[in-house]
Amino acid sequence: MLIVHVDVAVKPEWVDAFRKATLANARESVKEPGIARFDVIQRKDDPTRFVLVEVYRTAEDPAQHKETVHYATWRNTVADMMERPRESVKYTNCYPDDAGW
Amino acid sequence: MLIVHVDVAVKPEWVDAFRKATLANARESVKEPGIARFDVIQRKDDPTRFVLVEVYRTAEDPAQHKETVHYATWRNTVADMMERPRESVKYTNCYPDDAGW
Repeated sequence: MLIVHVDVAVKPEWVDAFRKATLANARESVKEPGIARFDVIQRKDDPTRFVLVEVYRTAEDPAQHKETVHYATWRNTVADMMERPRESVKYTNCYPDDAGW
Repeated sequence: MLIVHVDVAVKPEWVDAFRKATLANARESVKEPGIARFDVIQRKDDPTRFVLVEVYRTAEDPAQHKETVHYATWRNTVADMMERPRESVKYTNCYPDDAGW
């Protein structure tokens, strides 16, 4: 699997709106055949910080995701809500194996 | 859920041994009733960097985990393999809800 952690810092006044827009995106994203999980988590010690944990089945699937209407809607909706550009880091799974996602 | 991301930088000569010890810990950890997932992922651009994604059902479950033999074995085995002290960040789940882990 290709796992992407997207680290987002949200302007405090936009936290609720960001969360709402991101959940709408997550609910549609998990319907994509190339996406095994699309978790959205929020830091306990700083609610303005989120991580999107995107689990893709193949290296080609992120590009497919970026062509969807829900991704474009999310990207445009949240563009001005972020404190700074979001940062992505790519990982591969050690555990569990591909069947465990 | 309480989600803990543990960020680990491993000394290059210990990467394979760290991975082996961490997988052994993960396989036992997922048998704990308080642990929903225990993913181990490795950075694509830097294989010396790992994240343990630990998903606990309640706030009390990390303490239970730290009392297990497999945790103690892992902690002792990897202590000298790390480049610097590991860093943990706690999150709560926005998506999916508790049933989705």
